Amino acid sequence: MLDAKGTRSLRLPPVSPKSPTGVSTDGVPGYSSHKPHVQRRLHRIEGQVRGPQQMVDDDRYCIDVLTQASAVKAAPESVALLLLADHTEHCVAEAIRAGHGEAQVNELNRACQR
Amino acid sequence: MLDAKGTRSLRLPPVSPKSPTGVSTDGVPGYSSHKPHVQRRLHRIEGQVRGPQQMVDDDRYCIDVLTQASAVKAAPESVALLLLADHTEHCVAEAIRAGHGEAQVNELNRACQR
Amino acid sequence: MLDAKGTRSLRLPPVSPKSPTGVSTDGVPGYSSHKPHVQRRLHRIEGQVRGPQQMVDDDRYCIDVLTQASAVKAAPESVALLLLADHTEHCVAEAIRAGHGEAQVNELNRACQR
Amino acid sequence: MLDAKGTRSLRLPPVSPKSPTGVSTDGVPGYSSHKPHVQRRLHRIEGQVRGPQQMVDDDRYCIDVLTQASAVKAAPESVALLLLADHTEHCVAEAIRAGHGEAQVNELNRACQR
Repeated sequence: MLDAKGTRSLRLPPVSPKSPTGVSTDGVPGYSSHKPHVQRRLHRIEGQVRGPQQMVDDDRYCIDVLTQASAVKAAPESVALLLLADHTEHCVAEAIRAGHGEAQVNELNRACQR
Repeated sequence: MLDAKGTRSLRLPPVSPKSPTGVSTDGVPGYSSHKPHVQRRLHRIEGQVRGPQQMVDDDRYCIDVLTQASAVKAAPESVALLLLADHTEHCVAEAIRAGHGEAQVNELNRACQR
Repeated sequence: MLDAKGTRSLRLPPVSPKSPTGVSTDGVPGYSSHKPHVQRRLHRIEGQVRGPQQMVDDDRYCIDVLTQASAVKAAPESVALLLLADHTEHCVAEAIRAGHGEAQVNELNRACQR
Repeated sequence: MLDAKGTRSLRLPPVSPKSPTGVSTDGVPGYSSHKPHVQRRLHRIEGQVRGPQQMVDDDRYCIDVLTQASAVKAAPESVALLLLADHTEHCVAEAIRAGHGEAQVNELNRACQR
């Protein structure tokens, strides 16, 4: 899929904003209180990908490129864990306190299994 | 490290181009024969990271952002495996044929353990 | 550590039974309601390890042994996820309902990061 | 599948001993030179599984059992890497030296992708 700037972008799943799969909260995602921090972490991944890109452009040694490419894996994993922690602390805990936590706990457990 | 555009970029390891850690080949990396393919795969990761970025900008539901962020992990892993396969097929196999494969095999085994 | 039968056994951490690290519940672990199922799953792992053991005894081909040894990894991961789901559903949810969920949520998030 | 002792055992793949999938060597697996070491490492995994088994028997706290169960994952991974290193160093390197390494390199690369 090409976006306005002609670069390939990811087709996002057709989920309406703020409307989770079945289980609904007040529409405020769990990461809201530190959204700029999450945004910075995601932007940083773009910068990290440029590491191995430049190395391949420069014909650098395979194992060195491999090492940098492997390092890029850690960043999205770490952001995913941050989102998971926020979600548990806010959305799931709030749903439990409000007496309708079962669906949220099930959804959380399925997310952990991926 | 900030680059010209003021964004954080990755500090590359101080390895001179084409000079691997100790073990040397003819200076042609194993991915040379399909370098444009590797470059496209690495550029695509940048596009994929924009998925969760846009979702956070739009305050999308945590679990949906998490799912996209987790998907981003798979791409660098898959590029790393491609580089590893090329390296084994070309650099390591050539070093073995030339009678000095031991260092390359050791280096390959260490890379697999990361 | 050698146990009575002279085989190497695992030194368990010096945590008193039913006394979690700081955060306490009623002493009933989250997996209690299906303890026999968890026990069967753990016992099955022992049987699975005997697969690659027998293959090495029989001098089977490396890649075949490797495939079986890799398959053994999946089982403990899957039991860990089962324990995590039980724990969230019971211990964490109950602590939140009882108004002292914060420590449990923090402990859960730290466990997910391992 | 139940074995003579009535415990569930793993059905091994129907590969004849010493006959790899297509690519053949001299029938001596790569781990031969230190087979007792590999055997000890595999036997140790059985001991490690008894850690979380005992903990569940004793109704220990979920997170503590989880931590032990997660630790069990590392052992088969580490044996798999040992087998992979031996295989590359012996079987693959010998096949390359003998001039018919292509099938072995392809098989190795597929094994790394699992």
